[in-house]
Amino acid sequence: MLKGHQSWVFDSKPTIVASAAVGGPFEGNGALADDFDIISEDLWLGQDSYEKAEKALLEHACERAIQKSKIQKEDINFFFSGDLMNQIISSSFTARTLGIPYLGIFGACSSSMEGLALAAQLIDSKAAKYVVTAASSHNAAAEKQFRYPTEYGVQRPPSAQWTVTGAGAAVLAQNGDGPKVTSATIGKVVDMGISDPYNVGAAMAPAAVDTIEAHFRDLNIDASHYDLIATGDLGKVGHELANALLEKHDINMPTDIFTDCGLLIYKKDQPSFSGGSGCGCSATVTYGHLLNRMRKGELKKILIVATGALMSPISFQQKESIPSIAHAVSIEM
Amino acid sequence: MLKGHQSWVFDSKPTIVASAAVGGPFEGNGALADDFDIISEDLWLGQDSYEKAEKALLEHACERAIQKSKIQKEDINFFFSGDLMNQIISSSFTARTLGIPYLGIFGACSSSMEGLALAAQLIDSKAAKYVVTAASSHNAAAEKQFRYPTEYGVQRPPSAQWTVTGAGAAVLAQNGDGPKVTSATIGKVVDMGISDPYNVGAAMAPAAVDTIEAHFRDLNIDASHYDLIATGDLGKVGHELANALLEKHDINMPTDIFTDCGLLIYKKDQPSFSGGSGCGCSATVTYGHLLNRMRKGELKKILIVATGALMSPISFQQKESIPSIAHAVSIEM
Repeated sequence: MLKGHQSWVFDSKPTIVASAAVGGPFEGNGALADDFDIISEDLWLGQDSYEKAEKALLEHACERAIQKSKIQKEDINFFFSGDLMNQIISSSFTARTLGIPYLGIFGACSSSMEGLALAAQLIDSKAAKYVVTAASSHNAAAEKQFRYPTEYGVQRPPSAQWTVTGAGAAVLAQNGDGPKVTSATIGKVVDMGISDPYNVGAAMAPAAVDTIEAHFRDLNIDASHYDLIATGDLGKVGHELANALLEKHDINMPTDIFTDCGLLIYKKDQPSFSGGSGCGCSATVTYGHLLNRMRKGELKKILIVATGALMSPISFQQKESIPSIAHAVSIEM
Repeated sequence: MLKGHQSWVFDSKPTIVASAAVGGPFEGNGALADDFDIISEDLWLGQDSYEKAEKALLEHACERAIQKSKIQKEDINFFFSGDLMNQIISSSFTARTLGIPYLGIFGACSSSMEGLALAAQLIDSKAAKYVVTAASSHNAAAEKQFRYPTEYGVQRPPSAQWTVTGAGAAVLAQNGDGPKVTSATIGKVVDMGISDPYNVGAAMAPAAVDTIEAHFRDLNIDASHYDLIATGDLGKVGHELANALLEKHDINMPTDIFTDCGLLIYKKDQPSFSGGSGCGCSATVTYGHLLNRMRKGELKKILIVATGALMSPISFQQKESIPSIAHAVSIEM
C-alpha cells in the first residue's frame, strides 16, 4: 500500500522464506566468506567467457535459494532479476534456465532492492504466491564492459571500487518462517554532475541520502527505528560523503548503525580500493550475511539502501554525468 | 490479483487517463502518421548523437502524456520505463529529467507491456495513485548498437525488421475517463534455438504464442473475448510463424482480429522489409493508434502481446541463441 509519495508499506509482511549468496575467489578470501552458500575458486566458473560465468553465478544463487525454500520451481509465479551486462543477459539467460515467468529490471547496482521491493509488493497485494528475486555481477565482465579488460592492467585510482563477483537470490512467500519485508521506498534519479566512472561512490551518495530522507518522511520514522542501515555500494569515499550529506540535511544517523555493503564484504588487506560495488554487492551481503545475522537474532530491523549508477560507456563518452538512484527496503525479524 | 499461474486480473480497472506517441521521419511517412502526437522531421531531434535523440523522443512522449492527463508531475508516484540501449540510458536519463521515482525495466521490445502490466498492478493494489509508463527506441541508435551503423550501408535480408524511431507513454490512474487495463499475463522465456539477429521475428513468435496460450488458460477465455489481438513486433515473417504455431497448438485465432504492431506502423511501399520492431513499435502503436481507435469506439477489447528478443551483441558473438519473451496486457473501453 502506498505510504507518502514514494513508499510502500507491506501490511501482510511478505516472508523471505529462503535466500542464497554465491561468490568468486576474491569474495572467498573476503570478510564475509562464511556467509556465502557457494564459493567458486574459479573466476570462470568452468565457462569459456566471463559473461557466461556471471550467468552461472546467477543460476547457482537462484537454484540454491529455491532448493532451500523447499518450494517447487513450477509453483513460483514470477522471477525478477537485474544485472550490469548490456541487455541484462545474465538475468535473461538465467530466466531461460529457470523457466519462471520473468520480469527483467535494470537499476544498475540498485537492482537488488528494486527487485525485492517489487517482489514484496506482488506478494503483499496477492498478485503472487511465490516470487524469486535476484541480482548478479562479475568483476571481470563488468571491468571489460565499463572500463578496461582486467588483462590490460590499467592502474586504478584510490576512489575506484571493486565489482563483486557474486549473485544473491531470495524466495518470497505470503507466509512462512524467515525475515519479513515490511516497507520499501523507490528512489528518484539524483545527478550532482559527477562524471568520473572511477568514482561512482561519490556520484551515488546524494541519491542514497535522498532516498533515506524520503523513507523517513514517508514512514514518519527516523534512524532509531533500525538496528542497521546499509547502503549498497558507496564504498569508503561515498560513505564518508553520505555521512556529510546526512549531517548537512539535519538527518540524525548514528555512525554505529550506518554502514555500506561495499565496506563489509572485503577484508581491509584486500586491494579493493574504496570497497565493493556491483549488483552482486548488496545482493550477496543482504541475502547472505545480513539475513544470516537476522536469523541468528543479532539484528531485528534493517534497512538496505541499494545504490545504482545509471550510466553507460556511451553516455560517459558523450560527456554525460552519472544519474544515480537508490531504492530502500526494510526487513524485520 | 493473481489469476492462474502467471496472470493478473485488475478488478479495480486502472484507467489510462492519457497517452502519447512521438515518432521520427520514417514514422511520419508511415501508415499511422495521424496517430502520433508529435512527428520529428529530424532523425537527430536537434541533438548531437542518436542516443541523445532517443532520450529526447522519450522525454517528449512522457511530457506530452503527462500534459494531456492534466495531472501534476509532482503528484505522479512512479515512472516505469525501458529501452534497448545498453544500461537503458534513454529511460534513466529521462527519469532524471522527469524527477519521478523511477523503476527501470528491461524486456527488450516487450518492455512496453512489462511496464504497463506493472503500472496497472501498482494502481490496482493501491500502491500508487498515478503512474507513468513508457518505452522508446531509435532506429539509428539501435542499428549502431546491435548490428552496424546505418552509415556503413550493410545490406539487410528480407527477414530483417526496421527499428521504430519513436516513444510511447501512458499515464495511469485509479479513476477517470479512458481505456481500462483489465488483465495482464507475464511471459516465460522461450528459446527455440534461433540465433540470427536479422530474424528476431521468428525467434520471438514461439514466445508470443506461449504467452497467448497462458493468457487464455489463466483467464479461461479464448480469442473471441477480443476485438483485436496484436503482437508487438513479429513482423511479416514472425506473424506467419505465429499463425502456424497457434494452429499447431489448436488455438483458434481468427485472422481478421490477429495482427502485429510491426505490420501496422508502416506503409507497404516503405522499405521496412519484414516490418517494424523495437520498444517504440508496440509502445507507439498501442499508446497512439490503438488507444485512439478505442477512444473513437472502434475497438472495445484488445490484447497487446509485446514481444522481446533478450539477446545482446555479446551473447550473439558468443554463439548463444536468442531467448525471447512476450508480455500480454488487455485493455477495455
